[in-house]
Amino acid sequence: MKLYIGNKNYSSWSMRSGVLLAAFGIPFEENKLRFDFSEGSPWSRAIAALTPTKRVPVLVEDDGFTVWDTLAIAEYVAERHPEHAVWPRDRQARARARSLCAEMHAGFTQLRTVCPMNIEVFFPDVGARLWAEDEALRADVARLDAAWSDALAGSGGPFLFGAFSAADAYFAPVAVRLSRFGLPVSEAAAAYRDALLAHPAVEDWIADAMREQDFIVEDEPYRQAR
Amino acid sequence: MKLYIGNKNYSSWSMRSGVLLAAFGIPFEENKLRFDFSEGSPWSRAIAALTPTKRVPVLVEDDGFTVWDTLAIAEYVAERHPEHAVWPRDRQARARARSLCAEMHAGFTQLRTVCPMNIEVFFPDVGARLWAEDEALRADVARLDAAWSDALAGSGGPFLFGAFSAADAYFAPVAVRLSRFGLPVSEAAAAYRDALLAHPAVEDWIADAMREQDFIVEDEPYRQAR
Ligand SMILES: N[C@@H](CCC(=O)N[C@@H](CS)C(=O)NCC(=O)O)C(=O)O
Ligand SMILES: N[C@@H](CCC(=O)N[C@@H](CS)C(=O)NCC(=O)O)C(=O)O
Repeated sequence: MKLYIGNKNYSSWSMRSGVLLAAFGIPFEENKLRFDFSEGSPWSRAIAALTPTKRVPVLVEDDGFTVWDTLAIAEYVAERHPEHAVWPRDRQARARARSLCAEMHAGFTQLRTVCPMNIEVFFPDVGARLWAEDEALRADVARLDAAWSDALAGSGGPFLFGAFSAADAYFAPVAVRLSRFGLPVSEAAAAYRDALLAHPAVEDWIADAMREQDFIVEDEPYRQAR
Repeated sequence: MKLYIGNKNYSSWSMRSGVLLAAFGIPFEENKLRFDFSEGSPWSRAIAALTPTKRVPVLVEDDGFTVWDTLAIAEYVAERHPEHAVWPRDRQARARARSLCAEMHAGFTQLRTVCPMNIEVFFPDVGARLWAEDEALRADVARLDAAWSDALAGSGGPFLFGAFSAADAYFAPVAVRLSRFGLPVSEAAAAYRDALLAHPAVEDWIADAMREQDFIVEDEPYRQAR
C-alpha cells in the first residue's frame, strides 16, 4: 500500500492519513509529491495521473486501486484492518467520532483559511492579531473547544474517545495550528492539544516536516521567504 | 428514529439523508424545522437544542442519541441496517462510493454556491448565463460528469454502483440543480440525472417540496418573491 502525500510542513490533509496509518503501525510506503502549482510541474503531472480530484492524500493499493479523500481513506483502512480500533469500538462513540470528522471535513473554514498549517513556524503575533480582529476565527475555535471538551468529558481522555482513533488523526493538524498561532483554548482542550502533539505518530510527522526546509509561496500568507 | 430536516424545497443536505432512509424503506419519523435564520426564531431555538453544529439533518435515536452530518448519518444507518446495501457490497465499489461522497461533502463549491437547490423553480436563463460566464461552475460540472460517467461505465448503471446506494442519495440534490438550471451534461450523465429524479424516494421528496410553497429569502438569490 502506498500513500501519496504533499509537503509534510504544509499538507494538513496528508497529515491526517499519514498519522492515522502510522499511529496504528499499518505498514505503507510514503510517496511525497512536492507542492508546485505551476502548470506542467512534476506535482501537477503526478497528481493528475493519480486522482481526478488532483489532491493529496491518495492511497494506492498494491493492485493499483486508488482511494482518495481522507474520510474515504479512513473508512477503507478501518475495513481492511478490523484488528485495529481505527474507529472507537463503542457504537455511539463511533458515530460521534464520525460526526466530528465530517464536521472538520467541511467546516472550520475560517480557522483553516487564516491559520494555514505551517509546522516549522510560530506566528504568535499574527495569532494575537487575528484573535483580536476575527470573530469568525474565535467562533471556530469556540466550537472546536466545545467539541473536544465534550468528547473528552465523555471518554475521560487522553484522546477524544479514550484510545487514539481516526478522530484524533483528523484533529492533529488543528493541534499544530493552535500551537503555532498561539490561539487560546480551555484547559481541557489545551491538555488534549498537547497530548496530540506528543503522540509518537504526530511527533514523527512534525520532525520530518522540520527537515523539509521548503518554501511554497501559495501556503505562506505571512512570510516572504524562509 | 427521528430525522430533523429543513425545508424540503431548499435543504439539499436534508434531502440526502431523507432520500437515503426512504430509498431503503427504513422507518423514521420526519421532523421538519422551517428555516428562519433570524435570532430567537423557532428554527434557531430548535436547532441549537438538537446539535452543536446548528445544521440539519440530524438523526435522533429513540434513546435521545444524536448523529449529525449526512456522512456520519449514512455510516450510522449502514451499520444499523446491514440487511441493506447502503454502501455497495463490493469492497472497491464501496471505497469509490465513499470517495465520491467525501468529494461532494467538501467540494463542488461553485455549483453549490451559484446554483442553490430550489426544487419548485426552473431557472434556465440564469443557468445559461452562469454557464457562459462562470468557468468555475463549468469545471465543477465537468468533474461531476466525469465522476458519474466513470462510475456508471464501471457498474453498467442505472445507479452509480448498479443498485441505489448512499452515493446516489448524495447526488440527488445535484440532479435537481442540473435540471432546474438546465446545465448541459453528457448523455450518460443526463440518463443518470433522470434516473435519480425518477427514483420513488426522490420523486416523493420533490412532491413534498412542491407542496411547501414557502419563500426563504436567504435561499433565493434569483427571485424577489414567489
Ligand atoms: N477533502 C480532501 C481535501 C484534500 C486537499 O485539499 N488536499 C490539499 C493539500 S492539504 C491539496 O492537495 N491541494 C492541492 C490543490 O488544491 O491543488 C481530503 O479530505 O482529502
Ligand atoms: N456538512 C453538513 C452540512 C449541513 C448543512 O449545511 N445544512 C444546511 C441546510 S441544507 C443548514 O442547516 N444550514 C443552516 C445554517 O447554515 O445556519 C452535512 O453534511 O450534514
